[in-house]
Amino acid sequence: MNWITTMGFVAGICTTSAFLPQVAKIFITKKTQDISLFMYIILTTGVLLWTIYGLINEDLPLLLANGLTLIFVCSILVLKLRHG
Amino acid sequence: MNWITTMGFVAGICTTSAFLPQVAKIFITKKTQDISLFMYIILTTGVLLWTIYGLINEDLPLLLANGLTLIFVCSILVLKLRHG
Repeated sequence: MNWITTMGFVAGICTTSAFLPQVAKIFITKKTQDISLFMYIILTTGVLLWTIYGLINEDLPLLLANGLTLIFVCSILVLKLRHG
Repeated sequence: MNWITTMGFVAGICTTSAFLPQVAKIFITKKTQDISLFMYIILTTGVLLWTIYGLINEDLPLLLANGLTLIFVCSILVLKLRHG
């Protein structure tokens, strides 16, 4: 695996795992007032479409990365709807 | 352009534009307390790496989508550092 492919993998790990600190922060503080509801509605829709796109094209890295991201952004959306 | 490609474009538009409502919300409220700093540090790093990856691979859709997203997530990061 060359360094360009490695960079792609690192990029994917970053953009997927980035949402975990936000999930953790909400679990601790129970506060979501400053978080945009519309951001997470649009983002959840987009990541869901990327997941379906990866599934149809049998693109495993795209499917895995977006499938995982979908769980995280969906969690933030649910927590936002719960805490307001 | 078939419906699968169209879905990919819609997915890209969603995951890029999703960050705009958050930028707008911060501009209006000047509040970022509930937003995770670590999320935007990791996300900015990831999107920057995707942009470089798209540039090296001469992948225009990847480059454009991530280049635009980078502007938005960078703005949120700067606003978070400013408002705390």
